[in-house]
Amino acid sequence: MDDTIRPGEIAGPLPEAFDAGLYFIGRIRTPWTNRSDCPRRGDQAGPICRIEINERWRPAIAGLAGRDFLQILYFMDRARRDLLVQAPKGRAETIGTFALRSPVRPNPIASSIVKLESVEAGGLLVRGLDCTDGTPLIDIKPHYAP
Amino acid sequence: MDDTIRPGEIAGPLPEAFDAGLYFIGRIRTPWTNRSDCPRRGDQAGPICRIEINERWRPAIAGLAGRDFLQILYFMDRARRDLLVQAPKGRAETIGTFALRSPVRPNPIASSIVKLESVEAGGLLVRGLDCTDGTPLIDIKPHYAP
Repeated sequence: MDDTIRPGEIAGPLPEAFDAGLYFIGRIRTPWTNRSDCPRRGDQAGPICRIEINERWRPAIAGLAGRDFLQILYFMDRARRDLLVQAPKGRAETIGTFALRSPVRPNPIASSIVKLESVEAGGLLVRGLDCTDGTPLIDIKPHYAP
Repeated sequence: MDDTIRPGEIAGPLPEAFDAGLYFIGRIRTPWTNRSDCPRRGDQAGPICRIEINERWRPAIAGLAGRDFLQILYFMDRARRDLLVQAPKGRAETIGTFALRSPVRPNPIASSIVKLESVEAGGLLVRGLDCTDGTPLIDIKPHYAP
């Protein structure tokens, strides 16, 4: 994990204990091994990624086939959690963590809208993700375009 | 917590341990005390709700003022987590948990897009939420309309 601080960034101590727990319900397989390989934003015309669902939760995908779009929540387990103010590359000024979609945040949960290509026995094929290969999956929801 | 099972619903055992932890970073104040009072879906013309941010994380809202829309993640701490297949009221057939936006899911995290009305010292005033008063907040992100 990168724990360097850039000029102007502010870190704060984290609480001593968590308030709730998460289960990793699967893994996301993508073409990108390192964060630097990932596209800056998921593209629904981008490469197919495979969402693998652990066996115990597979009955919960019943009814997804035929949907166009899904919302995927995943856990960015390589990100530090203690930065309050960040200095993103290429920006002149610092900015608060909650005004960024950076992986660095107290609860490093990402949310992506993906295009569903197909449903398989153990998972889903989708387009529109931008995370590294092996990223832990935490939720799948139907997405209704606004 | 309601732990009754309706006909056709399937529960599965949860893992013995969590894989990651969450911090509650604040609380959401809404006009609704019980789940049955909440609107079925948040409405960006609905009542103002107040997102209270715990003191340690307040520096992280710098840069939010002036944004139109935010994505809010919160934790539905009253929901059971073990249902794989559900029988929602008013539906003829059962359906997998991941094909529903029900609070009942292995990781009961909700995601809402809200309209930002104003930024105050300790929090935000927004419209578009549909959760009960006191719901734990886990993340705030900028939302870019598609």
